[in-house]
Amino acid sequence: MKRSDRLVSLMNYFLENPKEHTSLPSFSDKYKAAKSSISEDLSIVDRIMQEEGIGYLQTLSGVSGGVSFIPDFSRENSNQFIDELCHTLQDSSRILPGGYLYMSDILGDPKMVNQIGRVLASAFSHLEIDVVVTVATKGIPLAYATASVLNVPVVIVRRDPKVTEGSSVSINYVSGSSRKIQTMVLPKRSLRDGANVCIIDDFMKAGGTINGMTSLLGEFNAKVQAIGVLAEADDEEDEREVDSFTSLVKIKNVNMKQKTIEVRHGNFV
Amino acid sequence: MKRSDRLVSLMNYFLENPKEHTSLPSFSDKYKAAKSSISEDLSIVDRIMQEEGIGYLQTLSGVSGGVSFIPDFSRENSNQFIDELCHTLQDSSRILPGGYLYMSDILGDPKMVNQIGRVLASAFSHLEIDVVVTVATKGIPLAYATASVLNVPVVIVRRDPKVTEGSSVSINYVSGSSRKIQTMVLPKRSLRDGANVCIIDDFMKAGGTINGMTSLLGEFNAKVQAIGVLAEADDEEDEREVDSFTSLVKIKNVNMKQKTIEVRHGNFV
Repeated sequence: MKRSDRLVSLMNYFLENPKEHTSLPSFSDKYKAAKSSISEDLSIVDRIMQEEGIGYLQTLSGVSGGVSFIPDFSRENSNQFIDELCHTLQDSSRILPGGYLYMSDILGDPKMVNQIGRVLASAFSHLEIDVVVTVATKGIPLAYATASVLNVPVVIVRRDPKVTEGSSVSINYVSGSSRKIQTMVLPKRSLRDGANVCIIDDFMKAGGTINGMTSLLGEFNAKVQAIGVLAEADDEEDEREVDSFTSLVKIKNVNMKQKTIEVRHGNFV
Repeated sequence: MKRSDRLVSLMNYFLENPKEHTSLPSFSDKYKAAKSSISEDLSIVDRIMQEEGIGYLQTLSGVSGGVSFIPDFSRENSNQFIDELCHTLQDSSRILPGGYLYMSDILGDPKMVNQIGRVLASAFSHLEIDVVVTVATKGIPLAYATASVLNVPVVIVRRDPKVTEGSSVSINYVSGSSRKIQTMVLPKRSLRDGANVCIIDDFMKAGGTINGMTSLLGEFNAKVQAIGVLAEADDEEDEREVDSFTSLVKIKNVNMKQKTIEVRHGNFV
């Protein structure tokens, strides 16, 4: 196979298999090329990945030597994306009763969702994460987009148990903003004991839902390494029950009467 | 930019932007290269895409000339993937009360989910589809994976209305297998009138849920162009309420007593 052909094939392979370790000899075998040629290929791929701001190739030498693609959305790409997101969200027709914001169109756009996942995953790529956890339903696409980049599975906490998931662990918790008692359920066999977890959700107000998830995860001795949300509501900051989290955007000053809204960068940067 | 660099960058661009039309001059500008060089690049990319069985580049000549990446998972890749899927599912420890099958681990694996999406999208890539519709919760990741390849948005039908989605249309329907009356809700502004729709779900027994969705979609004058499911239950075939659909696998002969199960290729091939 010629270099040009190998480069196209390699790029496809790396993008399909983020954070997966592959040995150099296996590339040599696949492409019937010398290791030195493969090394040159990899340095070209690595350079372009960095120039495009999508990540880099990490090389490990030694017996277990090889290479893996570490997705790492550049600061520039991330900032530009969050700028656009703020602009899109700052549209007064999005204001819904109760100070909520209509975001279903954004959460329904796979390309948008994949970009959000890339930004969140880049923020957490240096952490040890075994699994991404979210709660049904709105956070699900974001959780998959993030997990896809981190190359880990997704576990979904539900509000109601399902017959198709076997026995479950459930907790009751008090929702932060409405002060109502709610239930959360996680199937027993969905999460191993002591896993390193990253929580992903679409929206955080006072943080009651995420606190509930943390309690439920405690029953599995999980270690919450990171919390990432698309948007946080600024006005609930004082009563917030969650300390450390990453948000892409912050919703400020939702004025139902005047139909105005302010959307700023979150604490991501 | 050199050819080798361009090839890596182009491959990244196409994989990120499936089914998106891009003009040749815009590539010439971006890479500061002659149109003839770009044409040669594209033919290399196209050839390798076809060799790897992931799709091809579609070229349109004329004033609106340009190129788009059409993802098209090869029959060979699809069959091999479905083989593995059957093998994984045919594990007796997956049998749950009621003849259900534990599939949360598969549906929780982003790589698996993306592959399923690729296979389903390939089956529907020749159809005109404006939006992928699914019902909460298990079908959601499959819907996004499919929509991502088809480059269309996802709309999620819910069992309960949400304050964050504005006014909604709801219907009641009779579930096929349990004969219970259930509700389905779709926010008014989530789907435009007369859209071409592809329904995606994880599991189909008698087909009541999908029938319910079809009725609800009727309220939006939507045209259901395709129905795709990961798995169908074979034993419900006689009473099935849905005629035309695509399934990747077929669950046969679930024997709760002897703890045996048979999983075969669905009607995909």
